[in-house]
Amino acid sequence: MIREYIQTHQDRFLSELFELLRIPSVSADSRHKNDVRKAAEYVANSLREAGADHVQLMETKGHPIVFGEKIMDASKPTVLVYGHYDVQPPDPLDLWHTPPFEPTVRDGKIYARGACDDKGQFYMHIKAFEILMKHKLLSCNVKFMIEGEEEVGSDNLGTFVVANKEKLKADVILISDTSLISLNQPSITAGLRGLSYMEVEVTGPNRDLHSGVYGGAVANPANVLAKMIASLHDENGRVTIPGFYDKVAELSGADREALNKAPFDLTEYKKELGIEEVQGEKGYTTLERTGVRPTLDVNGIWGGYTGEGAKTVLPSKASAKISMRLVPHQRPDEITQLFTKHFLSIAPKSVKVKVTAHHGGEPAVTPTDSKAFKAASAAFKEVWGKEPIPTRDGGSIPIVALFKKELGLDTVLMGFGLDTDALHSPNEHYGIKNFLIGIETIVAFHKHFANP
Amino acid sequence: MIREYIQTHQDRFLSELFELLRIPSVSADSRHKNDVRKAAEYVANSLREAGADHVQLMETKGHPIVFGEKIMDASKPTVLVYGHYDVQPPDPLDLWHTPPFEPTVRDGKIYARGACDDKGQFYMHIKAFEILMKHKLLSCNVKFMIEGEEEVGSDNLGTFVVANKEKLKADVILISDTSLISLNQPSITAGLRGLSYMEVEVTGPNRDLHSGVYGGAVANPANVLAKMIASLHDENGRVTIPGFYDKVAELSGADREALNKAPFDLTEYKKELGIEEVQGEKGYTTLERTGVRPTLDVNGIWGGYTGEGAKTVLPSKASAKISMRLVPHQRPDEITQLFTKHFLSIAPKSVKVKVTAHHGGEPAVTPTDSKAFKAASAAFKEVWGKEPIPTRDGGSIPIVALFKKELGLDTVLMGFGLDTDALHSPNEHYGIKNFLIGIETIVAFHKHFANP
Repeated sequence: MIREYIQTHQDRFLSELFELLRIPSVSADSRHKNDVRKAAEYVANSLREAGADHVQLMETKGHPIVFGEKIMDASKPTVLVYGHYDVQPPDPLDLWHTPPFEPTVRDGKIYARGACDDKGQFYMHIKAFEILMKHKLLSCNVKFMIEGEEEVGSDNLGTFVVANKEKLKADVILISDTSLISLNQPSITAGLRGLSYMEVEVTGPNRDLHSGVYGGAVANPANVLAKMIASLHDENGRVTIPGFYDKVAELSGADREALNKAPFDLTEYKKELGIEEVQGEKGYTTLERTGVRPTLDVNGIWGGYTGEGAKTVLPSKASAKISMRLVPHQRPDEITQLFTKHFLSIAPKSVKVKVTAHHGGEPAVTPTDSKAFKAASAAFKEVWGKEPIPTRDGGSIPIVALFKKELGLDTVLMGFGLDTDALHSPNEHYGIKNFLIGIETIVAFHKHFANP
Repeated sequence: MIREYIQTHQDRFLSELFELLRIPSVSADSRHKNDVRKAAEYVANSLREAGADHVQLMETKGHPIVFGEKIMDASKPTVLVYGHYDVQPPDPLDLWHTPPFEPTVRDGKIYARGACDDKGQFYMHIKAFEILMKHKLLSCNVKFMIEGEEEVGSDNLGTFVVANKEKLKADVILISDTSLISLNQPSITAGLRGLSYMEVEVTGPNRDLHSGVYGGAVANPANVLAKMIASLHDENGRVTIPGFYDKVAELSGADREALNKAPFDLTEYKKELGIEEVQGEKGYTTLERTGVRPTLDVNGIWGGYTGEGAKTVLPSKASAKISMRLVPHQRPDEITQLFTKHFLSIAPKSVKVKVTAHHGGEPAVTPTDSKAFKAASAAFKEVWGKEPIPTRDGGSIPIVALFKKELGLDTVLMGFGLDTDALHSPNEHYGIKNFLIGIETIVAFHKHFANP
C-alpha cells in the first residue's frame, strides 16, 4: 500500500524536491541571503500541504528555522525530525557537469547541490509524513525543525533550542543526514565526529614584493605557512598539537574488532577515489581513521599569484582554512584553543599570524539500545529485508551533542546517502532509489516506534 | 640647456608616458593580446616622432618587437637600447588605491602598472633621444629594440636576435630596468640573478571529498603540498634540492667586503617593509642574500575552498608557483631539471604530482671596466655630482646573458627605479624626479660614450 502510493506519486515527489533544489540557499554566502529565506518558505509550505500544524518561520539572528508539528495524542511519544535546508557553496563551478542549481537526472541519480545534503534527505520526512497523514497511520506525534545554518556551524540553533524547550519537547530526534554502507547493506550511524574549523593568515612584508629584489632576505608567508602546516603532523601521521589526543577515547580491542567487521573493500575504495595508496595515522585501519580517530585537514589554501602564467611576486599574505575532526571526548572549544595557541607558538618572528575560529561541533555517540534505534532497525529489516549494521561516521552533525545537552534527547541517525554522493563537492548527487526507499523506511520507522 | 628643455617639456613628456601606461599590455594574459599590440604601436609612433628611422613592428610567434634606429655615422660606435613595453598582471586589483591603468600622481610619484617596470624607464630613452636629436647632440649611433614578452620570459627574443644579428649590430646594450640605491646615492647594477620558474600540481582523490567522511584516511593534496614545499629548505634556510648549490660562484672575502660596503640600513629596511625580522640563508647578510645567493620562493599557492566562510572539503588538487633566483654559474635549464627530479622524488605514493616549467633566465655579471660602463659612471657624476656605486641586483633580466651569448655584447644596466617602487605589486609607482633626472643622465651617457 505504502510502496504503491510512493510509486504512483514519485514524479510529483521528485518535482517538488527539484523545485527546492533550484533555490541556491548557500548559507555561507551573504549574497544568497534571500535565497536562503526563499528555501525556508518553500519548506514551510511543503509542511503545511503535507498536513502539519503551527507551521512557522522562527527568526534567529541568522537564517530562520522552520517549525511545524502534528500532535495526534499528547500522551503518546513524539519524534522530533531535524534537517537543514541550507547547502554548501557550489565552487568550483567549472567542475560541475550540469549546473548545481538545475537538478538533472543521470543514471538514476539526482545531480544538484543539496541533492543529498540535506534537502533530498529531510524532504523524505515531509513525504513520509504526507503518507502517514493520507493513510491515517500516524498514531504518535511528530515535530519538524528544519534549520538554515547547518553548513555554517548552526550558530543560532543553540539559543533557539534553549529558548524553545517546551515547543521542542519530544522523545527522540530523528535525522537523515548521513550515509548507508551501500544499497545492499543498510546501516545506521551510531557515532559522529566533532569539528573544529579554523582560518589562519600569515603576513610577511606589508605589500607584495618583487621576488627578485627581496627574495631570500624577507620571509615569504607562503613558504612559512607551508612549513607551519607541514609541522602539524609527525612522520606517523599524528597531529602534533600538544594535548590534541589527551581526551581521545581509545576503543577497546573488542570495539575495534566490531568496527572493522563492517564490509569494506580497500581495493574498491582506492579505485573509486582514483588513488594508489591510502594515507593516515599509523596503526589504524581506514575505517578506524575515518570513524574513531581525530584528524587535521587543510580545506583551502591561498596566497600570491594564482592566475595564468608567471608572476615573480613575494606575497604579503598567505592563508589557509584548516579543520579538525574530533572524536569522543574531545571538545571543539578546547581543541580550538589548543590549535590557536600552538599555531601562534610555531610562527617565526619574521611574520605575523592571525588565527580565527569558524564553527565547531561536539563529537557524539548515539545509543544502540534505545526504543527509537530499535524501531529504526525494525524499519530497515521490514523494508530492506536485512538487519542494518551500526557504524561510526566521519562527518560532523554538531547538533546531536547540542540536543543531548539542552533537550536531554538521543538522536537516531537514519541516513540514506552514500559516501560516493560527492557531498560538499562538484556533482553532488542522490539516488532516486535512495530517496524513494528512504521515504518507505521512514514510514515504517513511525509505525514501529508507535507500536514496538 | 638640457635641463631647461626637460623642465619646459616635462608636462608633455609625462602626458605621453601616461598615454602608454593607460594601455593594459599584460603579456601573460591572452585576453590582453590586442592591448599588447596597441602598446607596441604606440612605442613605434613615439620613436618616429622623436626622429628614429626604419621604425617597425617586427613580428614573432608571440608579441611583436619594436625596432628603430638612427645611424649618424656608420664608422662610429652604436648603442642598442633594450626595453619592454609589456607589464605584469595587476592582481590583486582590490589592493590598488587607484586603478592600475589610470596613471595617477601622488606625492611626486606616478602610480600605474608599468610606471617603473618598464614603460617609465624605457620611455626615458625615447625622450633622451628626442633631446639629442633636437639639439643635434647625437654623434654616435643608436638602435632601439623594445619587446613585449619580458614579463613572460622573452620566449621569442632569442630566435629574433639570432635571425637579426646584422640589424642589431652594436657596441653595447643599454637597459634601464633596474634600481638605484637611492636618489641620494646613484648606483649601476653590475650583476643580476637568473630565474627558474616552476608550477607544481598535487592531485589526491579524483574529486573534492567531504573531509568528514574521508578526512584522515585519504592523502590531502594541500597538506602534502605544504609538506613538500616545507622540505625544500633546511633549518639554515638553504635549499635542499640535491645539486642546487654545486655551480654557485662563491664570492671571495674581498668581494663580500666590497658588496657589504654599499649603504644599507637594516632598521630602515625592516621598518619600510613592516617586518620585525629578516629571514634567509644562514651566514649571509641581507645584501648577499639578495645579490649573490640563489633562493627559492613560493610565488603563489592555491587549492580547495578559498571563499567566504567554511567548507569542509578535502580538495582533489593543490598547486603552487615556485621560482628560484639563480646566481653565476647556475644554469636555469639545469636547475629546472634538478627541481623537477627532486620534487617528483619527494612525492608520497598517495598522490600524483605534475611539474611544469614556466620561463627561465641566466644569471649575469656585467663588466665594470668597459668604455660604456665608464660613460655611465661619468654621466651620473656629471648630473648627480656623485660617483655611482656598482651593485648586485636580485632581479632577473634574462636577456643580458642572451645578448652576451648571441650578439657578443655586454650590457650596461643604468636603471633609475627604487626598490620601494612596488614592482610586480599593487600600487607600482615611479618618481617623477627619477623619470626626469633619468632622461638627463641618459643624454649625458650618450655624450660621454661618444667623447670619452
